[in-house]
Amino acid sequence: LHKTFRKSARKVGLPPGTLLHIGNVRSNATTITVLDYDEHSCREIAVRTVEELLSFKSSSTITWIQVSGIHQIDVMEKIGQVFGLHPLTMEDILNTTHRPKLEDHGEYVHIILKMLYYQADDANPEIEQISLIIGSNYVISFLESEKDHFHQLREWIQQGKGRIRKLASDYLAYAIMDIIVDRYFIILEKLGETVEFLEDKLLLDATPDILPEIHALKTEMLFLRKLVWPIREMIGALERGQTALFQESTLIYLRDIYDHTIQVIDTLETYRDIMSGMLDIYLSSINNRLSEVMKVLTIISTIFIPLTFIAGVYGMNFKNMPELEWEWGYPLVLALMLTIGAFMLRYFKRKKWL
Amino acid sequence: LHKTFRKSARKVGLPPGTLLHIGNVRSNATTITVLDYDEHSCREIAVRTVEELLSFKSSSTITWIQVSGIHQIDVMEKIGQVFGLHPLTMEDILNTTHRPKLEDHGEYVHIILKMLYYQADDANPEIEQISLIIGSNYVISFLESEKDHFHQLREWIQQGKGRIRKLASDYLAYAIMDIIVDRYFIILEKLGETVEFLEDKLLLDATPDILPEIHALKTEMLFLRKLVWPIREMIGALERGQTALFQESTLIYLRDIYDHTIQVIDTLETYRDIMSGMLDIYLSSINNRLSEVMKVLTIISTIFIPLTFIAGVYGMNFKNMPELEWEWGYPLVLALMLTIGAFMLRYFKRKKWL
Amino acid sequence: LHKTFRKSARKVGLPPGTLLHIGNVRSNATTITVLDYDEHSCREIAVRTVEELLSFKSSSTITWIQVSGIHQIDVMEKIGQVFGLHPLTMEDILNTTHRPKLEDHGEYVHIILKMLYYQADDANPEIEQISLIIGSNYVISFLESEKDHFHQLREWIQQGKGRIRKLASDYLAYAIMDIIVDRYFIILEKLGETVEFLEDKLLLDATPDILPEIHALKTEMLFLRKLVWPIREMIGALERGQTALFQESTLIYLRDIYDHTIQVIDTLETYRDIMSGMLDIYLSSINNRLSEVMKVLTIISTIFIPLTFIAGVYGMNFKNMPELEWEWGYPLVLALMLTIGAFMLRYFKRKKWL
Amino acid sequence: LHKTFRKSARKVGLPPGTLLHIGNVRSNATTITVLDYDEHSCREIAVRTVEELLSFKSSSTITWIQVSGIHQIDVMEKIGQVFGLHPLTMEDILNTTHRPKLEDHGEYVHIILKMLYYQADDANPEIEQISLIIGSNYVISFLESEKDHFHQLREWIQQGKGRIRKLASDYLAYAIMDIIVDRYFIILEKLGETVEFLEDKLLLDATPDILPEIHALKTEMLFLRKLVWPIREMIGALERGQTALFQESTLIYLRDIYDHTIQVIDTLETYRDIMSGMLDIYLSSINNRLSEVMKVLTIISTIFIPLTFIAGVYGMNFKNMPELEWEWGYPLVLALMLTIGAFMLRYFKRKKWL
Amino acid sequence: LHKTFRKSARKVGLPPGTLLHIGNVRSNATTITVLDYDEHSCREIAVRTVEELLSFKSSSTITWIQVSGIHQIDVMEKIGQVFGLHPLTMEDILNTTHRPKLEDHGEYVHIILKMLYYQADDANPEIEQISLIIGSNYVISFLESEKDHFHQLREWIQQGKGRIRKLASDYLAYAIMDIIVDRYFIILEKLGETVEFLEDKLLLDATPDILPEIHALKTEMLFLRKLVWPIREMIGALERGQTALFQESTLIYLRDIYDHTIQVIDTLETYRDIMSGMLDIYLSSINNRLSEVMKVLTIISTIFIPLTFIAGVYGMNFKNMPELEWEWGYPLVLALMLTIGAFMLRYFKRKKWL
Repeated sequence: LHKTFRKSARKVGLPPGTLLHIGNVRSNATTITVLDYDEHSCREIAVRTVEELLSFKSSSTITWIQVSGIHQIDVMEKIGQVFGLHPLTMEDILNTTHRPKLEDHGEYVHIILKMLYYQADDANPEIEQISLIIGSNYVISFLESEKDHFHQLREWIQQGKGRIRKLASDYLAYAIMDIIVDRYFIILEKLGETVEFLEDKLLLDATPDILPEIHALKTEMLFLRKLVWPIREMIGALERGQTALFQESTLIYLRDIYDHTIQVIDTLETYRDIMSGMLDIYLSSINNRLSEVMKVLTIISTIFIPLTFIAGVYGMNFKNMPELEWEWGYPLVLALMLTIGAFMLRYFKRKKWL
Repeated sequence: LHKTFRKSARKVGLPPGTLLHIGNVRSNATTITVLDYDEHSCREIAVRTVEELLSFKSSSTITWIQVSGIHQIDVMEKIGQVFGLHPLTMEDILNTTHRPKLEDHGEYVHIILKMLYYQADDANPEIEQISLIIGSNYVISFLESEKDHFHQLREWIQQGKGRIRKLASDYLAYAIMDIIVDRYFIILEKLGETVEFLEDKLLLDATPDILPEIHALKTEMLFLRKLVWPIREMIGALERGQTALFQESTLIYLRDIYDHTIQVIDTLETYRDIMSGMLDIYLSSINNRLSEVMKVLTIISTIFIPLTFIAGVYGMNFKNMPELEWEWGYPLVLALMLTIGAFMLRYFKRKKWL
Repeated sequence: LHKTFRKSARKVGLPPGTLLHIGNVRSNATTITVLDYDEHSCREIAVRTVEELLSFKSSSTITWIQVSGIHQIDVMEKIGQVFGLHPLTMEDILNTTHRPKLEDHGEYVHIILKMLYYQADDANPEIEQISLIIGSNYVISFLESEKDHFHQLREWIQQGKGRIRKLASDYLAYAIMDIIVDRYFIILEKLGETVEFLEDKLLLDATPDILPEIHALKTEMLFLRKLVWPIREMIGALERGQTALFQESTLIYLRDIYDHTIQVIDTLETYRDIMSGMLDIYLSSINNRLSEVMKVLTIISTIFIPLTFIAGVYGMNFKNMPELEWEWGYPLVLALMLTIGAFMLRYFKRKKWL
Repeated sequence: LHKTFRKSARKVGLPPGTLLHIGNVRSNATTITVLDYDEHSCREIAVRTVEELLSFKSSSTITWIQVSGIHQIDVMEKIGQVFGLHPLTMEDILNTTHRPKLEDHGEYVHIILKMLYYQADDANPEIEQISLIIGSNYVISFLESEKDHFHQLREWIQQGKGRIRKLASDYLAYAIMDIIVDRYFIILEKLGETVEFLEDKLLLDATPDILPEIHALKTEMLFLRKLVWPIREMIGALERGQTALFQESTLIYLRDIYDHTIQVIDTLETYRDIMSGMLDIYLSSINNRLSEVMKVLTIISTIFIPLTFIAGVYGMNFKNMPELEWEWGYPLVLALMLTIGAFMLRYFKRKKWL
Repeated sequence: LHKTFRKSARKVGLPPGTLLHIGNVRSNATTITVLDYDEHSCREIAVRTVEELLSFKSSSTITWIQVSGIHQIDVMEKIGQVFGLHPLTMEDILNTTHRPKLEDHGEYVHIILKMLYYQADDANPEIEQISLIIGSNYVISFLESEKDHFHQLREWIQQGKGRIRKLASDYLAYAIMDIIVDRYFIILEKLGETVEFLEDKLLLDATPDILPEIHALKTEMLFLRKLVWPIREMIGALERGQTALFQESTLIYLRDIYDHTIQVIDTLETYRDIMSGMLDIYLSSINNRLSEVMKVLTIISTIFIPLTFIAGVYGMNFKNMPELEWEWGYPLVLALMLTIGAFMLRYFKRKKWL
């Protein structure tokens, strides 16, 4: 998850406004699909040249232009020109390491979000940056890959499910954002399973190799938090009504996304607190076990060392050791040893070491 | 307490506004009871069909509609239609994992709260989400289960106790919220008892199995805090007069609830600080005991190891060992051993290990 | 100090506005004393029935009504009626576990504060809740016990000391608050002595029983902080001029109390930081001592174990052990042992263990 | 540094406005020196009675009155009367334990600051409270001692250096404050040296007696921080233009002091972070050394204990022990012991303990 | 990096406004280069005397004056006079330990930033303070050294790349700031590599000498953070439109820098969290290894100490020890020892120590 963070250094030494794709190339070519609809009709159009998009810019219908693959600088540049996007906006769209943000350019609103999803065979979530350009009657969604994350939304629109066909482009943007934020709950659920798994493991049978797992989980939670946090501010700004493109009636839906992000953050914080509590328990359990080990050593040593000493004494070869000649010398010494041992055991029992 | 957190993932992939019950089903069927009153009269009505509720929407009396059981989507949908509730409001009512919140929809105010209570035979508190819809002359309370948490309030109304019969729907909403918040103090009292119990246990006789108990208590306090915290903001927003449905004279009562939530949070923070202080003591007491154990081992070993060595020397079988032939060899060696032992003991006394 | 926290649970299940005394009964009966003064005259009046108070409500003089003992619900209720106090105000006055607060009811201002004082023979401070009702020409002070905390103030008024006789009821309220806050410094001084005592003890001769003492001190500081903190907000609100009853010229005095509370909080924070720094030192000193103990054990063991082994070798009873027959066998072995011992000692010296 | 904190308790039980000197007496008598100047002239005047000051209050020149020694209550009281200072202002000037603050009384502004300086032969900085009363054409500086902290400023004024002679009393106040804040950098520099000294000591050769040193340094940094922090707020308030006495053109200079205080706080925070990082290293280095000690013990014990056991076996006195009779018994056993020892050593090498 | 912090103490005792170069001298002499351009022309001018600059102050072209080397007080003073810079501005430019800041003087805006760069052969980044004076038609950049950090920008201007030739001095200032902030990403990338390197090292093979490395990295991150943080506030102030010199159209570019600084801070925080998580793992891994060591010792000791005792018993020289005479005495004792050893091993297996 966190390898994508350090790539912006490539841009150093280029004049501002230079278009440069930062990130991994995840698609073959830039493909553009258009969904044009109003309350009564809906058609999907395959677009070959960027110029075809021009007509949608000022049509009376709502147009959803999905651009999959952003590494073809020339195509991207043309799209920017057709829709009159600011050079810095284009830069941000191409920089896939950008943090989530919202910027109002008057004519259009630019939103950057991160889509998280699991590949079929992968334990770590994939991260893909999605840029939305929201104009008065169109929404452009820039995706890094050719994955069709929004096919369900497209179907709902085509089938006229929900109220989306009756509403404007801001509601379409909301619907896209809602899908992205909803995906976070799947990540969250998997994190929650990992937390519970680790919790059980820690309380039952903690081995040292649990620490890197906890470390990895904490790092992942850290990154997820960094992705979700800016969305709060983003929607907070929208709610304060600073953006004319978003209508009153849409704001209540944004408030719903806002609630979701708060729930994500809340849950992450709860997980983090549980994890750090678990870590404390683990650390003190190590100490405890060390203490246990030492007790065993101490008890065994403390009992036998004096006895061994006594045995050593009567193993000495002095000529003149009267005890050695005694008839009952040996049994007496054995009895002495037993007494000392018993006394020691009682002492440890009293100290509650046994 | 915290198993309920991760269920929202089920909603992913559904169009916004789709009604879906998230959570455990806790009742057999949705039952609706109505309490209709004004200053002079009060009657309780059993309602069979949702349509019967329509008449209460615009009557001059205050109507309290209690809906027990929210998992019957069709019934819920009808209630939403009768009272003109926004689809997102209905979604939130059905999502029993929602965090507490307040939303003003102009026509009505939607409040989500969590009721905490102990089952007769259970150590952990049950958690139940309660949604309030507050209109100008009605209050709808949605409960997950068929438990009648508010029977006392119903009696007070029927008996005309307090001022509730003379006041409007906002005061009824306050009375319901007051009962919910009051319950937190019972949880708090039990937590306090646990804190004191653990405090005594730690200072008297700390065993390692106290750690999971502390962990569980901390987790529980964490969740309680997450439930209470949003209520502060909620009432803060009401106090700033943003909601026309709440009258000036009711605000002073909300301020009282606000004080209660602050007291809950304050007490939780105090408990948390005490707990973490106790944990520090426990951890250092482990270290201390380890230190004690090591001292015993060290004293015994350090005294007897040199003595055993001496015994070993005189146990050697060399032909030519003059000491062995001495008349007083044996007593002299014993005396030497005693001296060394005594010296060691004095050394440890000086070092304050004894 | 912290046993008083959990009593509010008793109120659960009662309709709001029900008067109930929460806390310990600390006086025999409710007694009322009145001090009525203006610039020219001052008289102290013993009051038998609550009704006598009515005349002071609208007199032109300043009246200070002190109510000692608040557990007699009927008397309290009457006082509330005579001065037109809101039911919630009465509830708060009777709930001695309430946190400090200020509430402006237009007609009067209600302030809750906590008086802390040492009993003659007690190590822990007593805590007593004091409620002030400040009207335009009267101040009612509700005390839990019959202790006359304000006898000095009463004398100053009677003797006309300072400017109090010339000023209005808000200045009287300030004078009472000032006395309460001043008392905190006595607590603070004692805490400071304890901090210094523990600091010296830790650095000189730390034993494990210092931890519960630190724990107790930290808990006490925690509670004091919780009592003082709300006073800041309280006076901050007064300063923002939200309360018409407090005049401009009195605000500069409130600012003085505000400075005092900041000093209390600052000092508490400093103490807390010092304490936690001390705790760190203590914990690492335990580790250090453990390390010392282990070194002694290791040095003794490491020197004697190889020597004992050599002695053991020559204690074996093999028939054919040529060394045993050597003339100089024994002295040679002793010399070998000495060499090994000396080598070991030099090794430890180099490692700086000695 | 921190012994001065707890003296305010002496004031408890006195009516507000009672003048009482809190702190150590640091001067013999109160002496007053006056510097009266305008753009063209400048004269230094020795003042014997307070009444002489009256003429300066309304003169057209700028007057700097320095009062050294504040413990003579009667003199202080007269000064207060001559310049119309509020009783609470006088109280604060006499209370040398007051925290830094700024208070605007309309007629004059009252600023409390702390001067820190090293005595020639002292390792700990002295702390002295300095109160400034800033009127429209005069500045009174109250010092605890007779030390002439501002002699340089006086010379600059007399020599007409800089712009001070052309500017009003607010610039004079700034110049005094600037000197006080500049002194903090000397303290800071010494702290920085101590931090570096401790850093080197910790990394090279950490002994347990470094902990009290770190504790002392942290406490000192804590106190310095508490002195500097309020100055930020103070100047922030001045910048917000709340004080008519400070002119626009002076504010840019105050901004400069503000920058300095931020630098002090920043540096202190950096030092604190470095210190706590160092403490972590020290604590883990103790653990490391313990680990080293234990390894030595374990290696020696683990190698020799089995060998000693074997020697013990062949030291037994059984009649019938065939190995003892073998010709090669002894060398074989020695070879066995060598093998076991070598095996053990290899085991520890593999475990990287050697 | 952090040796530069403590030099401001040199200024103590000088009147405000005295020019004094604080920091290391990094250039031979002060050299001035001028780039004068508008949309149509662009010329680079070598300047010998400061007076030549006067003509550029009010020309209609944009002039970029770069001053390399600031330690020549007389030259600096003249520049200040020519462009009418406030004495405090000059002081700040000369004080190379100043923290980043922005100050609006109406006529001009003064910005202080820190350039970070790696010397060819150095592991630690160099730090150089860069002051910008932004007037309506000129920008003066003061550099400590003769390094030409902005040669690329100069080329872009000369070649007319980007939009810079068409825009005003505020855009030139932005372009300079952008280059400085971009450099931080190079530092960040190197830090990221170090973090990853340490992460791998810790998980694979942690030795105690990793701690000073972590300490150094944390300190470096601390300082970088302190440099970047003020830039946020700076640009925030510009965005709030407080500075007339910066036009609306330039603000969107500043917003871009703002985003960069947030990304730097975010990444630093992430690194810090990762580092502290790693530290926890390292510390507990030390404990773990100690625990391992102790287990080995305990197992070996606990098995052999009783056996050695038995051997000792039968090594005693008592006359009357019947076992010694038994035919099968020796094998029986060996069998007993084996049994005890096997029992011990099983015990440790059960305890999961093996």
